[in-house]
Amino acid sequence: MVRPKIVLFGDSITEQSIRENGWGVSLANAYSRRADVLVRGYGGYNTRWAMFLLHHLFPLDSTTPPIATTIFFGANDAALIGRTSERQHVPYEEFKENLRKFVRHLKECSPTMKIVLITPPPVNEKGRLAYAKSKYGEKATEVPERINEVTVQYANACLEVAYEMGVSCINLWAIMQHTDGWQTKYLSDGLHLTAEGNTVVYREVIKVFDEAGLSADNLPFDFPHHSKIDSKHPERAFQQNACDVQL
Amino acid sequence: MVRPKIVLFGDSITEQSIRENGWGVSLANAYSRRADVLVRGYGGYNTRWAMFLLHHLFPLDSTTPPIATTIFFGANDAALIGRTSERQHVPYEEFKENLRKFVRHLKECSPTMKIVLITPPPVNEKGRLAYAKSKYGEKATEVPERINEVTVQYANACLEVAYEMGVSCINLWAIMQHTDGWQTKYLSDGLHLTAEGNTVVYREVIKVFDEAGLSADNLPFDFPHHSKIDSKHPERAFQQNACDVQL
Repeated sequence: MVRPKIVLFGDSITEQSIRENGWGVSLANAYSRRADVLVRGYGGYNTRWAMFLLHHLFPLDSTTPPIATTIFFGANDAALIGRTSERQHVPYEEFKENLRKFVRHLKECSPTMKIVLITPPPVNEKGRLAYAKSKYGEKATEVPERINEVTVQYANACLEVAYEMGVSCINLWAIMQHTDGWQTKYLSDGLHLTAEGNTVVYREVIKVFDEAGLSADNLPFDFPHHSKIDSKHPERAFQQNACDVQL
Repeated sequence: MVRPKIVLFGDSITEQSIRENGWGVSLANAYSRRADVLVRGYGGYNTRWAMFLLHHLFPLDSTTPPIATTIFFGANDAALIGRTSERQHVPYEEFKENLRKFVRHLKECSPTMKIVLITPPPVNEKGRLAYAKSKYGEKATEVPERINEVTVQYANACLEVAYEMGVSCINLWAIMQHTDGWQTKYLSDGLHLTAEGNTVVYREVIKVFDEAGLSADNLPFDFPHHSKIDSKHPERAFQQNACDVQL
């Protein structure tokens, strides 16, 4: 049996999910022996640049497309014009259209793929400024390069595209702000996730996968648990598993 | 660019490497955006049972075989006859021959694949007995099901096969015992690894990969770092990367 794939497509918040305490690690662990969790996170990327990767990461002719994909962009697209991260900015309408293209492409790859949009997390401007100061000292910007009231528009774009196209969306922007102290509880530098922030993403993704019938318990092991192997006749466990073993 | 694969093939010590603080997580993180680390660890498996997986996990006709594979068995093969884990026992000679078959098969898959045998870690009998007691109470075995002086034979088999066949071997059995207090510093239940034990495996694997020219720094990113993207002409970065993007 070939183990199915779950792909995490996004920016730095996805790239960093493979670090200790990352939501990608938690997912990989939850799906141990059942599915491979492949991290396709590209720090600094917006949807415009990620568009160049789409056909490479998700080729239409793949015989083993992912069973589920998370699409987690917007944090960079929402960078403000005229501020230090201007080059990453993508206009709202283009962002929305790019998301549509992502979803359309994934549906074409596999009509059964579970597609989950994740909105960018909220922005804590104070945290961004403190981070800039810690990095650039006196030269640091005095106005934040991202603000929460703009990021919410990009979060809403995710929700709207998901609704339009009939796919799931995790409104991380809203969910995180339901908890007092989210600014530092969930965000390490006003934008990226703390360990607790990673736990929120993991919990929400698992919830959506469960509702889609993709809970780890629902996916078989790729090969039998060792307790199912008869030590006198080990081949039987593998035959039952429909493995055509030729050794 | 398709991201190359590094496969970790083994028993529970490999399966658990994807948990928090696991050596698989550390490897995946080190090779972030450069290679996928795929965990193929099967708890409780010995080399005899793992033999049934070999052609499935490493098909000879794969066009994208792993660039490196770790083979990490022996902890279960070395279980003693006449004790509680007898069913997992594989005789020394068969164990050795199974390792040879694994290596021969992987070489056939790809003559350039970096193949790394890892010996089983040392066994702390006291830790095993304490674990049995915590699990089975009064019914626990009073003699350990694995002992260090037998496991060393299986460790030596790894070394001999590696030497014979010209592949690398990490003598984890010996390395761990160089440190005072290895019994509880590196082993959580006399057999499986603590966070510090995982760090030892990670460090040793990285060292062997580095010596083979496979350090993460030597492998390219699958797609450009965002700082290489000209925001006015993003397509250029992807063309340079020889990506034939058709959107």
